[in-house]
Amino acid sequence: MNYKMVWYIMGQICKVAGLAMLLPILVGAYYREHHVVLSFGVPFMILMLIGLAATIKKPKDKAVFSTEGFVSVAASWITVSAVGALPFVISGEIPNYVNALFETVSGFTTTGATILSDVEKMSRACMFWRAFTHWLGGMGILMLVIAVMSSNDSRTMHMMRAECAGPNVGRLVSKSSVSARILYGIYMSLTASEVVLLLCGGMPLYDCLIHSFSSAGTGGFSLWGDSIGHYNSLYIEMVVAVFIILFGVNFNLYYYILIRKFALAFRNEEVRVYFGLIAGATAVITLNIMHLYSSVGGALRHSFFMVASTITSTGFATADITQWPVFSQTLLVLLMFVGSCAGSTGGGMKVSRWMILFKTGIKELKYIANPRAVATVKMDGKPVEKGVVRGATSYLVLFMLLLGASLLIVTLDDYSFQESASAVITCMNNIGFGLGRFGPAGNFGGLSELSKCVLCADMLLGRLEIYPLLMLFASKKR
Amino acid sequence: MNYKMVWYIMGQICKVAGLAMLLPILVGAYYREHHVVLSFGVPFMILMLIGLAATIKKPKDKAVFSTEGFVSVAASWITVSAVGALPFVISGEIPNYVNALFETVSGFTTTGATILSDVEKMSRACMFWRAFTHWLGGMGILMLVIAVMSSNDSRTMHMMRAECAGPNVGRLVSKSSVSARILYGIYMSLTASEVVLLLCGGMPLYDCLIHSFSSAGTGGFSLWGDSIGHYNSLYIEMVVAVFIILFGVNFNLYYYILIRKFALAFRNEEVRVYFGLIAGATAVITLNIMHLYSSVGGALRHSFFMVASTITSTGFATADITQWPVFSQTLLVLLMFVGSCAGSTGGGMKVSRWMILFKTGIKELKYIANPRAVATVKMDGKPVEKGVVRGATSYLVLFMLLLGASLLIVTLDDYSFQESASAVITCMNNIGFGLGRFGPAGNFGGLSELSKCVLCADMLLGRLEIYPLLMLFASKKR
Repeated sequence: MNYKMVWYIMGQICKVAGLAMLLPILVGAYYREHHVVLSFGVPFMILMLIGLAATIKKPKDKAVFSTEGFVSVAASWITVSAVGALPFVISGEIPNYVNALFETVSGFTTTGATILSDVEKMSRACMFWRAFTHWLGGMGILMLVIAVMSSNDSRTMHMMRAECAGPNVGRLVSKSSVSARILYGIYMSLTASEVVLLLCGGMPLYDCLIHSFSSAGTGGFSLWGDSIGHYNSLYIEMVVAVFIILFGVNFNLYYYILIRKFALAFRNEEVRVYFGLIAGATAVITLNIMHLYSSVGGALRHSFFMVASTITSTGFATADITQWPVFSQTLLVLLMFVGSCAGSTGGGMKVSRWMILFKTGIKELKYIANPRAVATVKMDGKPVEKGVVRGATSYLVLFMLLLGASLLIVTLDDYSFQESASAVITCMNNIGFGLGRFGPAGNFGGLSELSKCVLCADMLLGRLEIYPLLMLFASKKR
Repeated sequence: MNYKMVWYIMGQICKVAGLAMLLPILVGAYYREHHVVLSFGVPFMILMLIGLAATIKKPKDKAVFSTEGFVSVAASWITVSAVGALPFVISGEIPNYVNALFETVSGFTTTGATILSDVEKMSRACMFWRAFTHWLGGMGILMLVIAVMSSNDSRTMHMMRAECAGPNVGRLVSKSSVSARILYGIYMSLTASEVVLLLCGGMPLYDCLIHSFSSAGTGGFSLWGDSIGHYNSLYIEMVVAVFIILFGVNFNLYYYILIRKFALAFRNEEVRVYFGLIAGATAVITLNIMHLYSSVGGALRHSFFMVASTITSTGFATADITQWPVFSQTLLVLLMFVGSCAGSTGGGMKVSRWMILFKTGIKELKYIANPRAVATVKMDGKPVEKGVVRGATSYLVLFMLLLGASLLIVTLDDYSFQESASAVITCMNNIGFGLGRFGPAGNFGGLSELSKCVLCADMLLGRLEIYPLLMLFASKKR
């Protein structure tokens, strides 16, 4: 492994993350939260120092292959989370470091699970940073680095693959840095549009920023304990729901629309299944919860919002699902596993990965029925490469094994089976709320420090799709 | 598809199942339960009539490929279960047909889940039949047919594969009928040994037969509501635990021991992992439940028994695990998925399938780290065929999809998430007890008829390892 290059990439990421801390500092200054502003100073310095030390000299050997990409992404996500947690500790708003780390990892991985029981007490600067980690983590910090540095290194593709979500990552254009800029361009435009539309709904600007960052990363942190339900406004709920659904769509689609290749955009099988699942689940849950609400409209409103929030792995809430029938709760848990589209900011196992898995299962059935028949797994009319199928099945295997192992450790806290399972599932899929005590109205503060650390690892495993993190610990042997 | 041959095989299976009903008739006559004996008359006639009608003429085209094997196995398991449920209904001991079907499917699939709240009321003949379905289902009825008919048809291999458990089925000797006879020979000897050893422990002969049939099939039906715990005898518990563990071992191993190929027998990787898992889980659970028992010995005794009962998918109980810490309960649920060895009478996903899956995951990690390295999945030192790896991964995918779908339907009954999930998991893995209301002390009687039917399908899917049943409904198109 080319350690020098790994160190160099890490440095670049730390610099960008450090610069990102200037934003909450500005916010704190604006709101005259001087005490809080100071607490960002130390972590800012640490990130900039690591960044400058690591990038002062560009390595001669610039070779970056997938191992280097995976390892540098995993190492920098851990570093940035570890340092990014410091403002919460120094400002005293989350005095316990493990809690602060949980909150920060939950932010960067766009999970949105919180340990705070009274989120509304937080200072504006810290709250801004908390939401901004969602925005950074959604599209990825490395992606931002690639977008900012006009690197003409074709090898950055290996790094993009490590941070991008989904079974198969394709570049938009031949140059990675241009691809990254286009993606961030779309990302910023969509975020800005949401801010404007929320402003139109009468939401204060600060609230608009927080909730738009949170939506963009499909994260789920909110200003309020009762999340989006706080505004009790149909307009705001619908704007947020539509935007999180849009952020859960493969961004390639927006690029195709931009360059007017509409046919390519709308032929996408994954996106169709994604919208189909949202429509189907919304309809079924509406029927199931109808008796709890005064009108069908009310049931539909909450059902649509919670389905959108779950499948996109956002974790905003307008209703306390722990009061819903078990059927609806279970359907939401299953949607957590499904997740959003590949190449989006959403989490979960991704719709396309499940489609590949499902089609592989069907293919095997056909093969058993008739071993001479030639069956191939196809997506969008094209055969799926064998490596991609193998990757998807291995992903499921590793996901289930890690899920089982994490569940065992978390159950040591002796929460109920349902609560423990939902906590692990929600963290690994980067959703943010579970069932029972970890439902939308609850929080993760009561868990032991061991469980919190395991869940931190699960959130990172989920966001970086397992391989980079395992690679970090496995590749040392070479 | 060669429908005539499917019909012919079904006929053979029905005849053997019909003849098997003579045993409970004899038992009933011995205990003078004349009313009950009569209730076996109708189903006996139905099975024999189907059997004779279907086998009166052997088809000219004897071609049997995997489709025919799968479809005939699936169709005859359904038929035999549907008719096998009739004695319970006619005798009035389980008046509701869906309940009787659930009990019979649970028997043949060696699940051992019961809908009876007061099992001790059952007549001796019905109880015998209930336990005997475990014994028949454990090794398989088709296997018995192959053993009985001295068919020199080499194509019976395709049928064995449909009923045998595990990712990869190998014959012991080149002739299927001889293999089947050897397997049944080992099966009968082990069952007889258990009967004798239980007799030595002071258990009445009738009880010995019931519990030995139940152990042999790794089923779990007991004479008593409190299962093996009823005898409160360390000796009996240990005999049963050791035997169910032995029945969960790949039967090839016993054959190798018989022909004195000890090296082949003890080099088996799967069996080592299986014993390792039992030892490890027993130790961990003992530590976890120690505070609930007066001595370490007591904790160890219950821990060992429940681990053996769970990993082999038997479902006997000596302790009410719903009183245990959530960690221990969760570990047992995970063991349910692991299951026993391939080629045994046990259920679950099978140790070797998980080993192949685990090794495939590791291989993929190695491949990502270094795409040029040649990595193969090996078992017992030999490379695993690609088809077997593909089969194992597809199995996991289909298993998870079917699990999710079943769970959704069962949650319509509005039992808790934990209870619903454990019910589906225990049925699909053919264990017999779940958590909460479906724990060892509970029963499945309270579920809706829809849920019971879904769980019946799940038990069959689990026992026949998915493919045959799906094939039955998918292959009609051709």
